[in-house]
Amino acid sequence: MNVVYPGSFDPVTNGHLDIIERCSKQFEQVIVAVLNNPSKKSVFTIEEKMGFLKETTSHLKNVEIDSFSGLLSEYAVEKKCTTMVRGLRAVSDYEYEMQMALVNKKLNSDLETLFMVSSTEFVYLSSSIVKEISMLGGDVRCFVPPIVEKALKDKNKEGK
Amino acid sequence: MNVVYPGSFDPVTNGHLDIIERCSKQFEQVIVAVLNNPSKKSVFTIEEKMGFLKETTSHLKNVEIDSFSGLLSEYAVEKKCTTMVRGLRAVSDYEYEMQMALVNKKLNSDLETLFMVSSTEFVYLSSSIVKEISMLGGDVRCFVPPIVEKALKDKNKEGK
Amino acid sequence: MNVVYPGSFDPVTNGHLDIIERCSKQFEQVIVAVLNNPSKKSVFTIEEKMGFLKETTSHLKNVEIDSFSGLLSEYAVEKKCTTMVRGLRAVSDYEYEMQMALVNKKLNSDLETLFMVSSTEFVYLSSSIVKEISMLGGDVRCFVPPIVEKALKDKNKEGK
Amino acid sequence: MNVVYPGSFDPVTNGHLDIIERCSKQFEQVIVAVLNNPSKKSVFTIEEKMGFLKETTSHLKNVEIDSFSGLLSEYAVEKKCTTMVRGLRAVSDYEYEMQMALVNKKLNSDLETLFMVSSTEFVYLSSSIVKEISMLGGDVRCFVPPIVEKALKDKNKEGK
Amino acid sequence: MNVVYPGSFDPVTNGHLDIIERCSKQFEQVIVAVLNNPSKKSVFTIEEKMGFLKETTSHLKNVEIDSFSGLLSEYAVEKKCTTMVRGLRAVSDYEYEMQMALVNKKLNSDLETLFMVSSTEFVYLSSSIVKEISMLGGDVRCFVPPIVEKALKDKNKEGK
Amino acid sequence: MNVVYPGSFDPVTNGHLDIIERCSKQFEQVIVAVLNNPSKKSVFTIEEKMGFLKETTSHLKNVEIDSFSGLLSEYAVEKKCTTMVRGLRAVSDYEYEMQMALVNKKLNSDLETLFMVSSTEFVYLSSSIVKEISMLGGDVRCFVPPIVEKALKDKNKEGK
Repeated sequence: MNVVYPGSFDPVTNGHLDIIERCSKQFEQVIVAVLNNPSKKSVFTIEEKMGFLKETTSHLKNVEIDSFSGLLSEYAVEKKCTTMVRGLRAVSDYEYEMQMALVNKKLNSDLETLFMVSSTEFVYLSSSIVKEISMLGGDVRCFVPPIVEKALKDKNKEGK
Repeated sequence: MNVVYPGSFDPVTNGHLDIIERCSKQFEQVIVAVLNNPSKKSVFTIEEKMGFLKETTSHLKNVEIDSFSGLLSEYAVEKKCTTMVRGLRAVSDYEYEMQMALVNKKLNSDLETLFMVSSTEFVYLSSSIVKEISMLGGDVRCFVPPIVEKALKDKNKEGK
Repeated sequence: MNVVYPGSFDPVTNGHLDIIERCSKQFEQVIVAVLNNPSKKSVFTIEEKMGFLKETTSHLKNVEIDSFSGLLSEYAVEKKCTTMVRGLRAVSDYEYEMQMALVNKKLNSDLETLFMVSSTEFVYLSSSIVKEISMLGGDVRCFVPPIVEKALKDKNKEGK
Repeated sequence: MNVVYPGSFDPVTNGHLDIIERCSKQFEQVIVAVLNNPSKKSVFTIEEKMGFLKETTSHLKNVEIDSFSGLLSEYAVEKKCTTMVRGLRAVSDYEYEMQMALVNKKLNSDLETLFMVSSTEFVYLSSSIVKEISMLGGDVRCFVPPIVEKALKDKNKEGK
Repeated sequence: MNVVYPGSFDPVTNGHLDIIERCSKQFEQVIVAVLNNPSKKSVFTIEEKMGFLKETTSHLKNVEIDSFSGLLSEYAVEKKCTTMVRGLRAVSDYEYEMQMALVNKKLNSDLETLFMVSSTEFVYLSSSIVKEISMLGGDVRCFVPPIVEKALKDKNKEGK
Repeated sequence: MNVVYPGSFDPVTNGHLDIIERCSKQFEQVIVAVLNNPSKKSVFTIEEKMGFLKETTSHLKNVEIDSFSGLLSEYAVEKKCTTMVRGLRAVSDYEYEMQMALVNKKLNSDLETLFMVSSTEFVYLSSSIVKEISMLGGDVRCFVPPIVEKALKDKNKEGK
């Protein structure tokens, strides 16, 4: 069974990596699909986002990093994939996720969304909070992989 | 009993029309009041929004389409209306609606907010999600009336 | 427009009375319908519950106190009533109320549920909390009308 | 990939059957596991519950009906299954489900819980609400399969 | 500053102990107050519950174990304490806690409730879930202190 | 015990003042810390925000008004303060507050966040809603102290 794990990944956090590792154990093939939405501001470019994901998941043989633009429901068809995975944080945007799952099912009735619960140590973690802490000079070592920590520091220097 | 059903309606969806039709059965007169807030970005002009509503509710004799700017609590007084209706989606901004109902009661103690629950087939539906899908080239036929579907397509062409 | 305001009212609280008074201003006729469910334990008998309501709403000419057993959706038909009112507390069983509204609409498609938000001073108030406090010897004067306060005291003496 | 879909199923509803059918499309093998908990009151016996499920899923070749007692996390090990599926209703016991998913992961770190969102027409549906309506003499034809509807009617007659 | 940390503690879990240790660092004196409510069923007696707490908090010099019956708001007065602490689990009975805080403030306007957030590793933990797992023969070693684990095992043997 | 009560206070509302007064009774010293974040738009300058707070809390001898930029967790260390207070509105951003409490604990394990529940009359109140009402010409006298009411009026005139 192949699944798509879509997201902005701006940047990937340890919470995302936890979901990816668990998916990689459960499913035959995992496509991590980075949303490429030029109309939405992001700190990292699509190439940077994919680079971080590739480097941090290189030990997982059944994980592929890809990007998509347009509708997720159409990307899934193109990839011949009928299952999508999303993480649910105990402290989370639950209602938004439900809405998207119902909309995606309406747009493509074959497409199922499966939710996986974040591990307890990541229940509070999001890309936004990591960016905010990093911008204020805080230490984000326990929230993101080393490569991302370094990149965030570099972005902050650039900004000055 | 006369009621005001206020909103942005940018654009009207099948979820809004469901609420309007049900209000039209329950109440003597229904004023659908489109918020005219120039400081908030919207895809359609106030005239376009009202036009869609007029065309799609023309079969409902006790429904009037109007617009307002400023405070809803003052508009209600002006219209000699003490009741306002709002839709609640099962997957929804419930807390925001509660807050607004309490604030409006504080600003005008005669003004009551009555909430109506969305029909199950529209629990996930919002103007924002429709605009997002349409902008990505998705088919929104099952979410909005035909006149709005066409207008959204035209807006997207303009944008290109 | 006539409405039914159904509930257990075991016993009526100041929060219920606030909803009833506001309904009585908004609607032509308000039927307060006490659920008579012998299989559910209650502190007061159906006669006592109705008695408290009658005495505390006697100044509201368009309010009628009634009781019902069986399905609310059928009771509404019998009373030729297509609208039901329910209170929503900011701190509340919101999800349960949504579920019941959707189920009642399914059982009787003509029956609408309208929700009214509790006034801020009653956001936390419920019959259960009043009974709990009273049973522990606490003063419930600010939560219920005097007739109910006295009745709760008497019940507690009986219990000893 | 094999999954367990555990529950009380007292009785199975159209909402459960929707999840089972969708699982049967997504996964190779689906074990519907009825919890056998003698210390918890139920309307139907474990045999009845399994009977309803067997009859209503007989057209799904990769669905097996089983029962279990004790810990789900141990049952999953026994069945050599590392994935469990649970339905999430938009109007639902979300927090409880999150808690159970985290607890089950703690008890058996190999066991993943995947959540599937109820179809919109079933967002409000639960076994409890069906039993309540049926007990009050209401028509539950649109909530459960015919075999369950008949069984509920018979139980109610017995009760009288 | 002295605080009361009230609860049922049937039995104390590692989540409770985490709150107690953190309170003991923040406040001068911490009174852990076990609710003695004979009308509510509990697995352990009030003596057992207090015993577990005494043994597991004996290293915390400013922590006192006590019990109370009746209203918490009156117990606080008696103890000359104006502050109560409650834990909030990310996955939790938040609404209930808000309701109780507002009610207690109404009953005793000097009494403040302060909420402390559970540590991430305990967000899902409750006494009920521990009892359920233990009753089904599960290993609760990572949820409760050793003395409680043993006591739960003994209770289960008794039950057989 | 000293506490920090951080926030944007753009501008201070009666809800904030209620929390400050209650903190001033509970704790020895209260530092109201206004976030100085130049990258976030605000209606009032940091000096104006602090001015309103100073004037409206001048009767509270143990309350100090300060400002901070950067990470709250570092500001707390600097102030030798291990406790932070946040208000929780019944109708509120609860999940966001939980997230921030967990993140701050991760960044500074000595820093505790204590939550206080808003008084019932302020459950719906926020700086944003006050600014929105004022901008639309509404009367905000019952939401903010007189000095802030006047300042909001002046801002609106400037804007014209």
